[in-house]
Amino acid sequence: MHMHTDGSHDLRHHGDAEIRDAGAGLIDLAVNVRTSTPPEWLRECVAGSLTSLAAYPDNRAARAAVAARHGLPAERVLLTSGAAEAFVLLARALAVRRPLVVHPQFTEPEAALRDAGHTVDRLLLREANGFRLDPREVPESADLVVIGNPTNPTSVLHSPEDIASLARPGRLLVVDEAFMDAVPEEAGTLAGRTDVPGLVVLRSLTKTWGLAGLRIGYVLAEPETVSALARAQPLWPVSTPALTAAEACMAPAALKEAEQAARLIALERAHLLAGLAEFEETRVVQSAEASFVLVHVRRGAEVRERLRSLGFAVRRGDTFPGLGPGWLRIAVRDRATTNRFLQALDQALAMVG
Amino acid sequence: MHMHTDGSHDLRHHGDAEIRDAGAGLIDLAVNVRTSTPPEWLRECVAGSLTSLAAYPDNRAARAAVAARHGLPAERVLLTSGAAEAFVLLARALAVRRPLVVHPQFTEPEAALRDAGHTVDRLLLREANGFRLDPREVPESADLVVIGNPTNPTSVLHSPEDIASLARPGRLLVVDEAFMDAVPEEAGTLAGRTDVPGLVVLRSLTKTWGLAGLRIGYVLAEPETVSALARAQPLWPVSTPALTAAEACMAPAALKEAEQAARLIALERAHLLAGLAEFEETRVVQSAEASFVLVHVRRGAEVRERLRSLGFAVRRGDTFPGLGPGWLRIAVRDRATTNRFLQALDQALAMVG
Repeated sequence: MHMHTDGSHDLRHHGDAEIRDAGAGLIDLAVNVRTSTPPEWLRECVAGSLTSLAAYPDNRAARAAVAARHGLPAERVLLTSGAAEAFVLLARALAVRRPLVVHPQFTEPEAALRDAGHTVDRLLLREANGFRLDPREVPESADLVVIGNPTNPTSVLHSPEDIASLARPGRLLVVDEAFMDAVPEEAGTLAGRTDVPGLVVLRSLTKTWGLAGLRIGYVLAEPETVSALARAQPLWPVSTPALTAAEACMAPAALKEAEQAARLIALERAHLLAGLAEFEETRVVQSAEASFVLVHVRRGAEVRERLRSLGFAVRRGDTFPGLGPGWLRIAVRDRATTNRFLQALDQALAMVG
Repeated sequence: MHMHTDGSHDLRHHGDAEIRDAGAGLIDLAVNVRTSTPPEWLRECVAGSLTSLAAYPDNRAARAAVAARHGLPAERVLLTSGAAEAFVLLARALAVRRPLVVHPQFTEPEAALRDAGHTVDRLLLREANGFRLDPREVPESADLVVIGNPTNPTSVLHSPEDIASLARPGRLLVVDEAFMDAVPEEAGTLAGRTDVPGLVVLRSLTKTWGLAGLRIGYVLAEPETVSALARAQPLWPVSTPALTAAEACMAPAALKEAEQAARLIALERAHLLAGLAEFEETRVVQSAEASFVLVHVRRGAEVRERLRSLGFAVRRGDTFPGLGPGWLRIAVRDRATTNRFLQALDQALAMVG
């Protein structure tokens, strides 16, 4: 389904709101960040940067490290204050006329485009089709296409060749890979590809490394696109501690640790999916590949409230375009937490009836 | 003198370039940051925030602390990723048609306006007039006026009433007070004023607290302006360590420490000015009120090179619109450093002849 923005969803609702204030103290299955992070070694590394805070940030080492990690020249790398800054830059710095966002998907790209004055088209992927991209559904008129891979909140990993097939002369193809490092071997990544014209890959260090509070992410794109985005950035957009962290996360040992985490997530996700499959009342998006799963229950809002009363915060799905009130996004956690959650869900479903 | 942008100055040259690379190892009188900062207590405070990096930043406590420190409601406060982000937001988020920048002045506001597609008018203050603002010289047509107070690089502190007299219906009056906390008792600040329509005050924590690497600053403005700027910000624009630092720097003990630092700067600046006055070859902007002074020498580029060969980096002045190649900006340092610098300047002037 291809439609215009209707503005009926709260695009500015994010998982962190589920665990703030009244949600404090709940077991958090709403926010997609590994709970054991940042690891001790990374905290110490960042702490070491605090003695040089009086100097303005120098991004060269971090940029070179990111470039080397993806086998790209540095001019194809832009470091940003989180992926959120990248969305704003994409919305404001480029000559875009017909942006299209593939939904259900993280809502910030569309919110940033709208705030910049754009009319945003939507392609709504369907549950009946497993929330998978059908490249033929993307209208030719779109000169900016935004898609997540793997997609938040569906957890679906689209085929990289399907995505690459969307490239056109005069079109920017933005692939939000914020959760790609949760996929073992990053199977399906387009990072490092230079054969896809207009490709813009967004990456995050937030989820795997627990650096949401530090604001660091990066863009991989053609040099002209990087330059255009950089011109719209403030001076010194990324802080010294964030640059230090970015460089550290590109080291071989860190990449190995991330790969191990991704494999563990895959195991724990299989356990969560198997548990969810035992409920008659639920429908789960089965082809989950990210660090969360999307599940449909009857009377979702009530179930979510019951879960809160039982001590568990999950992410409401109904703020994502294309999803109704029955959808809940659940973060993959360790087995013990997942087991307790499944028990709570059992109770919650029984209570709602 | 009131003129159009000619683009002949390198608006993107900053003091940190003077001490990078070939400048490493030089005694730095080019960057306007207190050298003993951040102090130990502040580093420890920021380090304490690193354990909560996995959570997204929550700016409420810092925003409330900034508001309380200036006696303003929170909706008049916008926290930004350094003052540099504020310049970009001002350039991009508001309906501005005829911006004017009062020069010589920090070049980033004009660079941000130009990058956003604006044609920027300039009002060039004159040495003959002590680089002081004459409010009558500001054209009525300007709907955004940017002025620094005290001004970088002249160190001149304009009268707050002269600045306030520039307020007009339909005009935004942007006062960059990045160096105001170097002025004892912040005499001349417009922060906290609510009786000046369209007033936008920019503040920094970088210079006094040595937090250039952390990216934190704030805007004080009318609630509608704050809202408009906030809508153009990325989500979570300020990192958790930066928010932690901002809140800490608003505490009474921190404000007292800043006041003591400002008084010390005033003393050390008087010593530097007295030393500079002994040279026949120099002209100094005498009414200096900030943590740096502006001095004119014959053959400034050569003098600056000689100073580098003698181990001292000073900031070239010729990248500031309205200043020629003879101008150098010199940071106020402790007495011993200043004395060594004055000796080096004596040698440099003799060598250049």
